[in-house]
Amino acid sequence: MSRPSMSARERMVAALRSQPVDRPPVWLMRQAGRHLPEYRALRAGHAFMDVVRQPELAAEVTLQPVRRYGMDAAILFSDILTIPEALGIDVRFPKGVGPQLKPTVRTAEEVAALPPGDIPGTLGYVAGAVRETRRLLGEDTALLGFSGAPWTLACYMIEGGSSKSYANIRSMVYRDPDTLTALLDRLADLVITYLRMQVEAGVDAVQVFDSWAGELRREDYERIAAPCTQRIIDAMKRDGTPVVLFAKNPGHLVDSGLAMKPDVVAVDWRVDLGDAAGRAAALGVGVQGNLDPAELFAGPKWIGRRVREMHAAVGGRTGHVFNLGHGVWPSAPIPGVEAFVNAVQALGGQG
Amino acid sequence: MSRPSMSARERMVAALRSQPVDRPPVWLMRQAGRHLPEYRALRAGHAFMDVVRQPELAAEVTLQPVRRYGMDAAILFSDILTIPEALGIDVRFPKGVGPQLKPTVRTAEEVAALPPGDIPGTLGYVAGAVRETRRLLGEDTALLGFSGAPWTLACYMIEGGSSKSYANIRSMVYRDPDTLTALLDRLADLVITYLRMQVEAGVDAVQVFDSWAGELRREDYERIAAPCTQRIIDAMKRDGTPVVLFAKNPGHLVDSGLAMKPDVVAVDWRVDLGDAAGRAAALGVGVQGNLDPAELFAGPKWIGRRVREMHAAVGGRTGHVFNLGHGVWPSAPIPGVEAFVNAVQALGGQG
Repeated sequence: MSRPSMSARERMVAALRSQPVDRPPVWLMRQAGRHLPEYRALRAGHAFMDVVRQPELAAEVTLQPVRRYGMDAAILFSDILTIPEALGIDVRFPKGVGPQLKPTVRTAEEVAALPPGDIPGTLGYVAGAVRETRRLLGEDTALLGFSGAPWTLACYMIEGGSSKSYANIRSMVYRDPDTLTALLDRLADLVITYLRMQVEAGVDAVQVFDSWAGELRREDYERIAAPCTQRIIDAMKRDGTPVVLFAKNPGHLVDSGLAMKPDVVAVDWRVDLGDAAGRAAALGVGVQGNLDPAELFAGPKWIGRRVREMHAAVGGRTGHVFNLGHGVWPSAPIPGVEAFVNAVQALGGQG
Repeated sequence: MSRPSMSARERMVAALRSQPVDRPPVWLMRQAGRHLPEYRALRAGHAFMDVVRQPELAAEVTLQPVRRYGMDAAILFSDILTIPEALGIDVRFPKGVGPQLKPTVRTAEEVAALPPGDIPGTLGYVAGAVRETRRLLGEDTALLGFSGAPWTLACYMIEGGSSKSYANIRSMVYRDPDTLTALLDRLADLVITYLRMQVEAGVDAVQVFDSWAGELRREDYERIAAPCTQRIIDAMKRDGTPVVLFAKNPGHLVDSGLAMKPDVVAVDWRVDLGDAAGRAAALGVGVQGNLDPAELFAGPKWIGRRVREMHAAVGGRTGHVFNLGHGVWPSAPIPGVEAFVNAVQALGGQG
């Protein structure tokens, strides 16, 4: 039973809970950021971390895509590497290179020596950015918070940045699983506190980014990475906060993700959306995705056809959130994003 | 019906043809290279491209892992970026960064302006390295040649190196498929000539590395990248040269790869080996893989158990070549590689 006129926020929250909607909601990972000229203009005067740390700037950047395109949800402009910073790790973003974290954390001694981590004390600016964003956004559009998942945070902390093969952490799975698990457990506690702070400040739901989970064998994901992410999902669900679970290259982990029963599992363009939606619905879970970011370069006809194809693949099932399979590329054309959002807005209801 | 005592070369070639073997053969992608102290010692005095270009050095490095571990096959020590070089592209490997190619090739004009490419004239040193390797290797061990696949070569040529999202080439799939296809077709012709030159010089079989194929949606892979790779496979099969098709992140492309009917499709640790082997065998195709390079850091007990598990998953089917799912990491421990090779050598026959 569809409702005739929902606000974007009602639509988004309903879809996250696999409830009926007038049409599926839409947002895009990395919708705020470099593909927008208004973002590049603002960044001309401010470093990336300044924008993240100053609530007024973060809120402004968070709102830019919603103003331009009218997505159903804004997602807080921030970074997944805030938590390492709360642990006293120096996190930098030198131009043209990936993030750099110092010192690395690789041994039992280094894990044990990490400070407790004062989330409200060090990351209070994130709560400030959420409050400022909500104030500017109003009550009718959904606002999403997020965090890196423990495995992905540990990838950066152990490697000291991004990496081709994540050989240090991936070998730890076999060399020193106890130290790795101790670190993941520490991170899970902090992520829960961090996400609760964001909810307290005004986000409607959260997405957990497990960007590098896809590097693991399914057995290793379930054995090493999933248990601490499960604790986060369970805590959010106990609180009544909808949670979306995202991984890059999630193909072999879709069933593992669904078994963890987040509200929604994000899938990428390499996953068959209809198949994933069917398996998800059987467990009462929704799916998010899965346009290829490359397809934003196609004409509006192609994008419109693909949106209708995805909608048909999901069928009448509730719980589908339109999105890309990864973040918007900095080179993405504005007309492509427009065509995607418009095509979803033109869809009829589910459920 | 297994044969009681095959040479390593007979075993490897038989497995590539899905014929019975006394036990499955084993080799490791990137078995020659930085994880070996004898390689690092040799490289102390020679730049990477000097080793590739001097047949005596290339042959020495190719033989190092076979001497140490006794794999069933050597694979020529070379680079997948030789063909761009034959097209007059400047290819460099600055220390600590990925390869850098100049100029990039992105427009119809730039593709049209590429020189014809004289493979024997510019890459004759590869044939020289094959001959020298065969001379030192003797007749009883298999020798594999290889090339990058057109899509993967085009990735490097269009991006000018490796890339996080390959946004230039991936957007060309939608922006300018004709120019992309023209480049891929040119590359396919050159790859065929290049692989035939290697066979003429003495390799027993070839592997086609389509490292970045896994970035594509299955539909786009089949529409854009596969047709030119299919031409290469068909040419090799007409010649009677066994061909292995490799991609990174091949999970969603296994059926597409099998449908192209190479002799063997390589799969990684994210793919269920037993499932892939079953689907491959139904088409008369073999499978290669699929230990996780991370598992080389586990003890010999774990590795031995996993080898027996993989062997059991393949069941009695012919056409399994033991390998990793990706290349050996530079940090890989020698005892791990030893344990893997030894465990395969201890297996009984298939078929």
